[in-house]
Amino acid sequence: MSKNLTSRAEDYSKWYNELVVKADLAENSAVRGCMVIKPYGYAIWEKMQAQLDKMFKETGHQNAYFPLFVPKSLFEAEEKNAEGFAKECAVVTHYRLQNDPDKEGKLRVDPEAKLEEELVVRPTSEAIIWNTYKGWIQSYRDLPILVNQWANVVRWEMRTRLFLRTAEFLWQEGHTAHATKEEAWKETKLINNIYATFAEKFMAIPVIQGLKTESERFAGAVETMCIEALMQDGKALQAGTSHFLGQNFAKAFDVKFTNKEGKLDYVWATSWGVSTRLMGALIMTHSDDKGLVLPPNLAPYQIVIVPIYKNEEQFDKISDLASTIIEDLKERNISVKFDGRDTLRPGAKFAQHELQGVPLRIAIGPKDLEDETVELARRDDLTKQTVILDRLSIVVEDLLEEIQENLFKKALDFRDSHITEVDDFESFKEVLETKTGFISAHWDGTSETEQKIKELTKATIRCIPLDNIKEEGICVYSGKPSKQRVLFAKAY
Amino acid sequence: MSKNLTSRAEDYSKWYNELVVKADLAENSAVRGCMVIKPYGYAIWEKMQAQLDKMFKETGHQNAYFPLFVPKSLFEAEEKNAEGFAKECAVVTHYRLQNDPDKEGKLRVDPEAKLEEELVVRPTSEAIIWNTYKGWIQSYRDLPILVNQWANVVRWEMRTRLFLRTAEFLWQEGHTAHATKEEAWKETKLINNIYATFAEKFMAIPVIQGLKTESERFAGAVETMCIEALMQDGKALQAGTSHFLGQNFAKAFDVKFTNKEGKLDYVWATSWGVSTRLMGALIMTHSDDKGLVLPPNLAPYQIVIVPIYKNEEQFDKISDLASTIIEDLKERNISVKFDGRDTLRPGAKFAQHELQGVPLRIAIGPKDLEDETVELARRDDLTKQTVILDRLSIVVEDLLEEIQENLFKKALDFRDSHITEVDDFESFKEVLETKTGFISAHWDGTSETEQKIKELTKATIRCIPLDNIKEEGICVYSGKPSKQRVLFAKAY
Repeated sequence: MSKNLTSRAEDYSKWYNELVVKADLAENSAVRGCMVIKPYGYAIWEKMQAQLDKMFKETGHQNAYFPLFVPKSLFEAEEKNAEGFAKECAVVTHYRLQNDPDKEGKLRVDPEAKLEEELVVRPTSEAIIWNTYKGWIQSYRDLPILVNQWANVVRWEMRTRLFLRTAEFLWQEGHTAHATKEEAWKETKLINNIYATFAEKFMAIPVIQGLKTESERFAGAVETMCIEALMQDGKALQAGTSHFLGQNFAKAFDVKFTNKEGKLDYVWATSWGVSTRLMGALIMTHSDDKGLVLPPNLAPYQIVIVPIYKNEEQFDKISDLASTIIEDLKERNISVKFDGRDTLRPGAKFAQHELQGVPLRIAIGPKDLEDETVELARRDDLTKQTVILDRLSIVVEDLLEEIQENLFKKALDFRDSHITEVDDFESFKEVLETKTGFISAHWDGTSETEQKIKELTKATIRCIPLDNIKEEGICVYSGKPSKQRVLFAKAY
Repeated sequence: MSKNLTSRAEDYSKWYNELVVKADLAENSAVRGCMVIKPYGYAIWEKMQAQLDKMFKETGHQNAYFPLFVPKSLFEAEEKNAEGFAKECAVVTHYRLQNDPDKEGKLRVDPEAKLEEELVVRPTSEAIIWNTYKGWIQSYRDLPILVNQWANVVRWEMRTRLFLRTAEFLWQEGHTAHATKEEAWKETKLINNIYATFAEKFMAIPVIQGLKTESERFAGAVETMCIEALMQDGKALQAGTSHFLGQNFAKAFDVKFTNKEGKLDYVWATSWGVSTRLMGALIMTHSDDKGLVLPPNLAPYQIVIVPIYKNEEQFDKISDLASTIIEDLKERNISVKFDGRDTLRPGAKFAQHELQGVPLRIAIGPKDLEDETVELARRDDLTKQTVILDRLSIVVEDLLEEIQENLFKKALDFRDSHITEVDDFESFKEVLETKTGFISAHWDGTSETEQKIKELTKATIRCIPLDNIKEEGICVYSGKPSKQRVLFAKAY
């Protein structure tokens, strides 16, 4: 914790990796590509979970739990989905270890305990869930099914980075079943809206809602909606997706229902998810060269109180005052931690809390006791002020709101100043190399062009924004006619 | 839902299996031994989680998350632990599927994608966690570590039953690290106390706290504490365990720390867990031949309101009244569901809510509107009363408390009347065959005797109760001297 972080300007990627570890958010484990989420990092994830879970439940969703394993025969039932995930899935083939007769004290896979059918560790749960829904749905009366699960999933990625891309990650995956196409579309949009609201109001991350192109779509979806955010280094990050699955999974698993007219039809589906990847987005949107910057709405504790004392008597008096402050703030639903450790000096504590992004710091010393004041320091803009005790709780309450808004505004300004309209391919390439960010450009609508641009520039189409204005133009690459601009960017 | 349950007297085991499915708690999945926890069942589990999580956090614990996979070399490091779980663990050997050239459209494990080292799907996480703690602990200043995780684990059990024994189950597992033996012991007891309090106050299940014998101990533990409950059929169920691990895992993973005296020592450890098995205990403690009976403290909704109407006008009036009642009860933190479905008749709704164990049912008909009354029915004793609207919220509040207490008292009476003191082996066998329940008997303290008794009667030592009175006696089987009685029972 004592060593300085690499600065963002020096090496953004290195800064990120160091920050995640030094701020005690997560670390790599002994298992290739799998992370350990440490208590401080997990506390942020718990805050995210609690808020999202509330929003899901307020809109009629319930949680459930489905098996970790997908039998191979189910996994391959929806062909596109299977194709999309087959190349990166962990496969269980045996159910027992035994002593290795050749190597004393070592275990080996028991060849006698080979499974008849291999089990895929879920990379996503459409297959196992739609196979289950088959038993739940007979009539329109059984619909809609609005179910979500909080779970771990595994995708055997070759290049992994803490939170952003890990072999195992935590997420929520919603899986809904509907009687009509319209209703399923409504659900797809509802959830994308919830994701956008959550990102903006809680994570303080401005996002663009849009549709994915065919090549960026979820494997097995008819359409994929998304929220796209922009990181400080000008790269985009897909922060959540909501899929309209049409009747693809109902057909693959033969899930039919009797509709109100008494006719059999396939069920309409959606699925949607956000993951611990959001932690990466949170870090890369707000943090600075001193460490993490957390929005008050997601900070494990919003305020830390650090006592500054020379003897036990002073410490006791400050502790007493701190207790009063904490009680007062708790009544206003503000979370506070008192850092009374005697193993660290105040300066070291300040540095640690800065590194860990605690939104507000209150320092109380002997002089403050006399003056009935405290020193209040903001993490976001690093300003300090002396506050009279009597006014502290009001000031703090206002400041937390202000910080939350300030972080969003700052990120929004950055994002908006990094959307560049471009009308020819030379400018396209130049913007990518200099300014980065989103490029708003005309595209001819073909996967071939999209692929070519990706090969030449590494930029992909992040989304076709929902609020797009129809505009005649010509494709920035092919010169063919286009009816709207789409957003390109290099992406995480 | 329309068909009757098998009665408990007829076939307890069948009654249980049917109830779990018919009450919409869980069902078997396409994966051998793995269950689907349905929304209604999961809502009960969420209530359990929320309460336990609160109790863990109030005693200083934090949540974190560790990898699903344990590399084989780590898995085998603590020998006894490895031995205990090796025979029932799912093993990942490959990380990719590919198209099977022999069978069109089918996938097969890609032989090129064999892992260098096999990964065990965690049956418990001591190994991966202690390997991680090694990097977190240098000095006594880094201790204690008080960490819990909510996770899924896999144990490849051959005979599975919904909730009671499933190949995959959900649980929490606490893993703590301490500087002294005393502190680790204190933690072991603290947690067992939390489990006992939770079981009694929230699940309304009386439990006996005790120590396990060597043969029933957790693989790798020095001592295992437990809470033991008694089911309605007279079989015992281990509802939670808290292990004092001594320095076993610290030694296996070489986790040393510098103590206050500046000397190197191995770290002391505990681990503890409860799982979705608790759902089985909950069901088998309180439910009856009409279905589930839920304690109000864990019911997904404590009250259901069923309107009884002949036309839309009546329905609207009853709905309006229901809204007022719901608002009023919400202010008292009572959860209510209005069952306004027009696809089911009131009688069918009554049956369903009985089957699902909703603690209180309010029925409102046209006559009630006139009289300003409602009909209130208790699920636990099936009594009904007419209540004046003005008094409803007070009556309901009191009743919910009464039901919670009543369920506990009933279970306690049953449990206490099913502990039989026995002093010879003939009586021992007779009690097991007739009355069942716990048998309190002298035991000579040897594993051989314990094993013999198990072979002859299927009864095992459930625990050596913590509140045991020292008493001289002779072993019920061997006739050798004994200093205390222990509790035997057949068990789930």
